[in-house]
Amino acid sequence: MPIYTPPIKDLQFALHDVLNVAQSGLPGHDELDRDFTKAVLDAAGKLASEVLAPLNIVGDQQGCRLENGVVRTPDGFDKAFEAVKEGGWTALDCDPEYGGQGMPYLLGVATGEMFVSANMAFNMYQGLTHGAYSAIHAHGTDEQKAKYLPKMVSCDWTGTMNLTEPHCGTDLGMLRTKAEPQDDGSYLITGQKIFISAGDHDLAENVIHLVLAKAPGGGEGTKGISLFIVPKYLVNDDGSLGDANGVSVGNLEEKMGIHGNATCVMNYDGAKGWLLGDLHKGMRAMFTMMNEARLGVGLQGYACAIPAYQNAVAYAKDRLQGRAVTGAQNPSAAADPLIVHPDIRRSLMDQKSFLEGARMLTMWGAHQIDRANQGDEAAEGLISLLTPVIKGFLTDKGFDTTVLAQQVYGGHGYIEEHGMSQFVRDARITMIYEGANGVQALDLVGRKLAQDGGKHVMAFFEMVKAFCKEHGATDALTADFIEPLKTASKDLQAAGMYFMQNGMKNPNDALSGSYDFMHLFGHVSLGLMWAKMAVAAQAGLDAGDGDTDFLQTKLATGRYYMKRQLPMTATHLARIQSGAAPVMDLDAEAF
Amino acid sequence: MPIYTPPIKDLQFALHDVLNVAQSGLPGHDELDRDFTKAVLDAAGKLASEVLAPLNIVGDQQGCRLENGVVRTPDGFDKAFEAVKEGGWTALDCDPEYGGQGMPYLLGVATGEMFVSANMAFNMYQGLTHGAYSAIHAHGTDEQKAKYLPKMVSCDWTGTMNLTEPHCGTDLGMLRTKAEPQDDGSYLITGQKIFISAGDHDLAENVIHLVLAKAPGGGEGTKGISLFIVPKYLVNDDGSLGDANGVSVGNLEEKMGIHGNATCVMNYDGAKGWLLGDLHKGMRAMFTMMNEARLGVGLQGYACAIPAYQNAVAYAKDRLQGRAVTGAQNPSAAADPLIVHPDIRRSLMDQKSFLEGARMLTMWGAHQIDRANQGDEAAEGLISLLTPVIKGFLTDKGFDTTVLAQQVYGGHGYIEEHGMSQFVRDARITMIYEGANGVQALDLVGRKLAQDGGKHVMAFFEMVKAFCKEHGATDALTADFIEPLKTASKDLQAAGMYFMQNGMKNPNDALSGSYDFMHLFGHVSLGLMWAKMAVAAQAGLDAGDGDTDFLQTKLATGRYYMKRQLPMTATHLARIQSGAAPVMDLDAEAF
Repeated sequence: MPIYTPPIKDLQFALHDVLNVAQSGLPGHDELDRDFTKAVLDAAGKLASEVLAPLNIVGDQQGCRLENGVVRTPDGFDKAFEAVKEGGWTALDCDPEYGGQGMPYLLGVATGEMFVSANMAFNMYQGLTHGAYSAIHAHGTDEQKAKYLPKMVSCDWTGTMNLTEPHCGTDLGMLRTKAEPQDDGSYLITGQKIFISAGDHDLAENVIHLVLAKAPGGGEGTKGISLFIVPKYLVNDDGSLGDANGVSVGNLEEKMGIHGNATCVMNYDGAKGWLLGDLHKGMRAMFTMMNEARLGVGLQGYACAIPAYQNAVAYAKDRLQGRAVTGAQNPSAAADPLIVHPDIRRSLMDQKSFLEGARMLTMWGAHQIDRANQGDEAAEGLISLLTPVIKGFLTDKGFDTTVLAQQVYGGHGYIEEHGMSQFVRDARITMIYEGANGVQALDLVGRKLAQDGGKHVMAFFEMVKAFCKEHGATDALTADFIEPLKTASKDLQAAGMYFMQNGMKNPNDALSGSYDFMHLFGHVSLGLMWAKMAVAAQAGLDAGDGDTDFLQTKLATGRYYMKRQLPMTATHLARIQSGAAPVMDLDAEAF
Repeated sequence: MPIYTPPIKDLQFALHDVLNVAQSGLPGHDELDRDFTKAVLDAAGKLASEVLAPLNIVGDQQGCRLENGVVRTPDGFDKAFEAVKEGGWTALDCDPEYGGQGMPYLLGVATGEMFVSANMAFNMYQGLTHGAYSAIHAHGTDEQKAKYLPKMVSCDWTGTMNLTEPHCGTDLGMLRTKAEPQDDGSYLITGQKIFISAGDHDLAENVIHLVLAKAPGGGEGTKGISLFIVPKYLVNDDGSLGDANGVSVGNLEEKMGIHGNATCVMNYDGAKGWLLGDLHKGMRAMFTMMNEARLGVGLQGYACAIPAYQNAVAYAKDRLQGRAVTGAQNPSAAADPLIVHPDIRRSLMDQKSFLEGARMLTMWGAHQIDRANQGDEAAEGLISLLTPVIKGFLTDKGFDTTVLAQQVYGGHGYIEEHGMSQFVRDARITMIYEGANGVQALDLVGRKLAQDGGKHVMAFFEMVKAFCKEHGATDALTADFIEPLKTASKDLQAAGMYFMQNGMKNPNDALSGSYDFMHLFGHVSLGLMWAKMAVAAQAGLDAGDGDTDFLQTKLATGRYYMKRQLPMTATHLARIQSGAAPVMDLDAEAF
């Protein structure tokens, strides 16, 4: 069975040595010192590694089953879900008014990484509930909040998001699900939704569906869309459960991965629903949670690759095959372990340097969201800009990382026995859902770059510049970190300049380079994160009060990223600067 | 169900317009004119698309079953196998002395591409038989050839390769399977082999296993290894089948993909075997077929991505979602087709430009093998050098291509219904078997570069140089094709120079860059192929006697590759030139 070891030390490094959370600005959260977060992370890590991780391969092999219209989850999921609830993990960063613990989102993300690493499919039941909780919390009436949120905070009831229909995914303006207003203020919802994660299951008493539908009078396209609360079982005024609502599971999808999560076709047949937020403003209500939801998928992208990497390392140390080219390292045995071979190390370093950079970027992003939630507009702007980068880049590279890890196993990675195939198959979905990565790239280049007059991207460049200026004279770091970061950042600026100079005349000149721009931005972001981590590690070494091995390893891993990954920015820039012609030249018939 | 359209026109272009097979030097094959190859390709394409392709998803969903020690293949495989045999396709490029048709290997590859595209798992039963045929043909005694080859040419009997054991894959020196000599000249083979593709099944009367094992007196490591013929059923002198041999199926592996092919654990329990080739020279016997086998896997790598691309194109034309940024293209409908969006085209062009380049490189490689088989030493040297590039680069990029194609489908690509997941899962194996791609990179840099004093890599550079010189003054092609090829080739030379200057002192400086070098070499090779295709297309246009749309599309697709893919060489070079330090710095404990 695959191993999973919670990366407590690295999470603590990100929280304290880099983000400096105890001092640096989450008002109302003075308690976030090293000891406190360590206790929280240790407890979450224990649950993740001991309870959730062993069920990961079980979930993959058994999958969910649709029996008489009811979804059954894999063996052991029910008990594990109880353990998560009892530990209070579903309530960690929720509003105390509804039973939450009021911790920052950042801490929810730090613990969430471990839950995802341990068992991504399982964690989605809770994760989607959190998304639905956030939507009701942001847009619900007091009565709605009082009715639904306490049970969702505890995960006695879980939540879903119902957007996609058979003929419409990204282009929600085309959706057909109808909402007919009733005299009592409710609506009757009729239509079919597909790809509904955690759409039904046996882990909770009730499922609270959030459903996009068209109510009369809203006009064409996305303007006519509203968001509705549609519970599986109607909720009485005293909070008890009433009749079954007119919603049923039409089918359970056979998927490439995340078999432990039920991906449902949901049929709404005059189901009773209640408007959430303003009529015909459903898209706006959905979008307010988008940054959080997309950051959450970016987190999945790298987090589900972490155990893949850990198992690849264990295999590379254990499997004896061949001899080191510089002479036997393990002369008493028949062969040396795989890890002596440079190309195996190249693969492991690609994985390690990406994963630690991705963790740092995600934690940094969560920190921005906490600040934004407290009214910091600069943080709101930055995270709005970086959200498609975090979602698109981290999920693409996270998937690549699982493939690299699987490859270390050779043929043993291709058979299902060792679980390496599952990591690849599970990771693949993160590039697709919550907006396919091409849509993230479009959002970045077509919307976010020019948002508020380009203010946020200017702020990003200013942040990089200020950082380089502050640390550019650090002898130990200049050549290895600051200079490569400057070079990469210049490539990003040149790409932005190309879009400005050409995209107005021909938008295709910008959009043909959108995907490369997202990756270019991702590399610069990870380069910045590595430079920040290097500064923190060097400071720890200079002060002489840290774990020297850990800090030296951090610096060496960072040097790898800067030398071996960051040069990709030049290729992305060259692709971008080749413009629309190579991409758009052919007629559709020529494909 | 996924579609598959045989690419007859493009195969003909490769064979005739670029390779000029009718005139350019396969003695004894004067019949290879356009009409003849078209007739052959049409017939193969018809079988592939009408008989094999519909069984591809059946094979994936049903898989093989082990029942009472016997492997059952998916429904319909038996009839399809009969159709392949009846068409004479298994005999196409085999020796007429044993019932073959004596066609060049190149034609076997051109038709084989279509069989692989249609149903890779199915085609392996035949493909592995061809490999075993080649080994017996090259190393067998006259008696062995007469006994086994006619039945293998017809695929009445199929063949396997038994190398891997539980504890040894790449490092075959560690293998433990034993061969005990008997008085009658035969051997008794005892041991366990794993990952044996087509190890058992119900498609043929007999299975001829080729098994690596250690006979007494051979010494340690690979020196002591010999190759043995071990039939499932013993063959009587009159050619009839006798008793069952002491070989059985221990288990059938659950795999990520290629479910239609039986991947077996084979137990040899004193099975009767006969030495093939010289005693203790088994590795040499295996290696003589390596170029062909590895080119075959390189072909699988891109060929199984072809239907993925074709289905992505069909979906992109059919699926309505969003509007073109430059204005509605399909104003009468609710939305434009996906293919109007620049990022979808970027993806499709990445796929198309890779696949056509990969086809050309594989056909060119097969042409070299035919020449080498006729005694052309320069061709032998070139294909020996390029084999790891073809295997490693084409399978890596082929897999990436299936992922790109799946992504075009969005969520519909992740569910199994449309078959896009299968393409990804099937393609993944090609990066692993027949030598994992890291081993290909090691073979390239550690062995092939310096082979015969570096003669072959010099010949490759000379070939590029001569080509650029010959066509450098072609106004229509210089800027778009010749100049980028020169730049990329210089990057490759610089990388080779780096290895020469540093690899002698520290072999890790070379091997840390081996994987990047393999990809760098792959890009230059595809750049050369695209330049060759551009010259041929331009010549056709200038002559005014070709299919203008086809030739213009060829040129535009080539321009895309040169502008958008070839710039990767700079990044690979930068990674290579960063040397061993970033890769090797960490102690194993630090991972």
